[in-house]
Amino acid sequence: MSVAPAKPDVRGAARRLAATSEAERDAALERIACGIELHADEILAANALDGEAAAGERPAIRDRLALDPGRVAALAAAVRAVAALPSPVGETIRELRPPSGIRIRKVRVPLGVVLVVYEARPNVTVDAAALCLKSANACILRGSRMAANTNRVLTDVVRAGLAEAGLPADAVTSVEGGHDALAALIADPATADVVIPRGGEELKKLLLRESRIPVLAAAGGNCHVYVDAAADADRAVAIALNAKVQRPGVCNAAETLLVHAGRPELLERICAELEAAGVELAEGEEAFATEFLDLKMAVGAVASLDEAIEHINRYGTGHSEAIVTEDEAAAARFTSEVDAAAVYVNASTRFTDGGEYGMGAEIGNSTSRLHARGPVGLEELTTTKYVVHGDGRVRA
Amino acid sequence: MSVAPAKPDVRGAARRLAATSEAERDAALERIACGIELHADEILAANALDGEAAAGERPAIRDRLALDPGRVAALAAAVRAVAALPSPVGETIRELRPPSGIRIRKVRVPLGVVLVVYEARPNVTVDAAALCLKSANACILRGSRMAANTNRVLTDVVRAGLAEAGLPADAVTSVEGGHDALAALIADPATADVVIPRGGEELKKLLLRESRIPVLAAAGGNCHVYVDAAADADRAVAIALNAKVQRPGVCNAAETLLVHAGRPELLERICAELEAAGVELAEGEEAFATEFLDLKMAVGAVASLDEAIEHINRYGTGHSEAIVTEDEAAAARFTSEVDAAAVYVNASTRFTDGGEYGMGAEIGNSTSRLHARGPVGLEELTTTKYVVHGDGRVRA
Repeated sequence: MSVAPAKPDVRGAARRLAATSEAERDAALERIACGIELHADEILAANALDGEAAAGERPAIRDRLALDPGRVAALAAAVRAVAALPSPVGETIRELRPPSGIRIRKVRVPLGVVLVVYEARPNVTVDAAALCLKSANACILRGSRMAANTNRVLTDVVRAGLAEAGLPADAVTSVEGGHDALAALIADPATADVVIPRGGEELKKLLLRESRIPVLAAAGGNCHVYVDAAADADRAVAIALNAKVQRPGVCNAAETLLVHAGRPELLERICAELEAAGVELAEGEEAFATEFLDLKMAVGAVASLDEAIEHINRYGTGHSEAIVTEDEAAAARFTSEVDAAAVYVNASTRFTDGGEYGMGAEIGNSTSRLHARGPVGLEELTTTKYVVHGDGRVRA
Repeated sequence: MSVAPAKPDVRGAARRLAATSEAERDAALERIACGIELHADEILAANALDGEAAAGERPAIRDRLALDPGRVAALAAAVRAVAALPSPVGETIRELRPPSGIRIRKVRVPLGVVLVVYEARPNVTVDAAALCLKSANACILRGSRMAANTNRVLTDVVRAGLAEAGLPADAVTSVEGGHDALAALIADPATADVVIPRGGEELKKLLLRESRIPVLAAAGGNCHVYVDAAADADRAVAIALNAKVQRPGVCNAAETLLVHAGRPELLERICAELEAAGVELAEGEEAFATEFLDLKMAVGAVASLDEAIEHINRYGTGHSEAIVTEDEAAAARFTSEVDAAAVYVNASTRFTDGGEYGMGAEIGNSTSRLHARGPVGLEELTTTKYVVHGDGRVRA
């Protein structure tokens, strides 16, 4: 079932989903959650096959791929958590009553077909399917060959849940194949309305470079913490450390620390604490341009807030940028003039995340300026439609 | 000045604009309006040159190109009308207070740099510059060679107004050159954050096919009027006529009339009235697929609402679709299941327009599913930024 049958009708499934009620979609999500619990043994057996084939991979990769009974239970729980979120579909977000007398509502509707391209993480198969279904979108899932057996069983379970709930199984269609197959998919704008990469930087760059379908992704995460002249020292230390050390390999981790030149003692203290936490410090142009995604950080002094803003707008990738300051005017200038999806005052860059924002689960994060900027959750998986009532009115 | 100087700093101008207040931008708009009035003779002289060179063109094209004292006054009035609109920039559109204690605001900010590509209509030069400036975006204007003299003077006036108001003249930069120059512009994603075509179908299709910059445009306008079994006859006649005849050459004009097979008398009456209004009627597959943009209309009977919806989703281009019915359930199904930027109940498709929607001036119209769907006004010229305050908070 996960290998697409003769010709899966993903567009037709999307149209059918768009006409469903939230209750119908929630019922399908509950069927899917139950299906995951019911077929736990099958899922674990398939995952064991994938695990054997991946025996030569790095431990981090094998860990991401591996399921155990607890992780399978978490997959089902994640589906139920998505079902419990409010659906944005059908929400009226603007009402207009122009003088002609027509009554206009701007209503959220599903995007249509979402292509999700990801690496060897079986949880993405389930999360992406659940988020797309909740928002009444059909999805095409293109996972990693490394997780092919696991994904096949998971997709079967999801599609069976859809069918049991009276919804079209093709609403979740998985595709396999190598780089050429992916290239063909993303070369055709008719494949999907949007493509969302979940995974490493190389995958994102490939899609941003080659896709003819609009891509929602974070194009890099060269994030900064700027410690202002008016920074509170303890806050500066805590935020710089958290932004770098708490999880250095992710895109909202900070890569550069900038400290106002009027606070040399604070620069010294933060550097000492970073080094004590195992962070290697670097300096200079090349370091400023590097996304380490590791326990490594560029450090520099700046003469002014202006220089900090200029530096960040020059080297940053528009992802997440923080200022530590007790000076409200400096904070206001920083948040206004730094050009990024998320700007922080006295908080860690690591907060950029749908879950941390209280948006519920996210399917990705975007530094695009169009459509969605920041975490991509259910709302960002919708578009809008103007619904106009006119009592027979015509244009003069 | 309109021919770009050595290297215009459009990005720098965009950053500077993003930090301006609405009052500063409104002051510049007023300077521009005054400048247009003050330089009316110069503008008319340049336009006369363009008019002479275009003497061999069709009357409709020469009319679009031509300015007279009244039309120049209207250009200035349009700039003041844009200044009077509320600026969406800085508006908080969502507030989130997750359990971690961080305070999140989602704020509207300018898109950045907008590339506007258009035909020989001098008013677009002024309208586009005004809308971009009001929304704190820099713009690159690429007009038609046919209006080059007029555009050069108008751009000079706009840039002088910006400079007098203390804003960077490069915020409005015009570029000239032929097809190759345009191809080079749109091949580079760094040129602008979005490209908006204003003008004919061929221009739109060119951009949608070749641009590496996201395009906001209406990809065709094959619009329908469906007269339901439960239609009021007079409303059906009025709406079908208005949708086809009021201005047949525009993308929200209807191209196909579908009438429920249970109302043969109404089909006959509407066809007679259309023919009396000079509309040539057509039938069959090929007619259904054609955008006439003329006094020509495809006509067909459908057996049911379902068949009407299916027909529209098959042949339509997702622009503007209307149902005429007194049956609320039929209207609800139509508005939910027809996939288009705007769906109408008992109103003409011709209403799809920023001005008619009460959004103020529009810079274009979009059938894209991402970012903006429908009229593109000031709000659609913004993106968002998350501004987060944390009192020293870090991620657990």
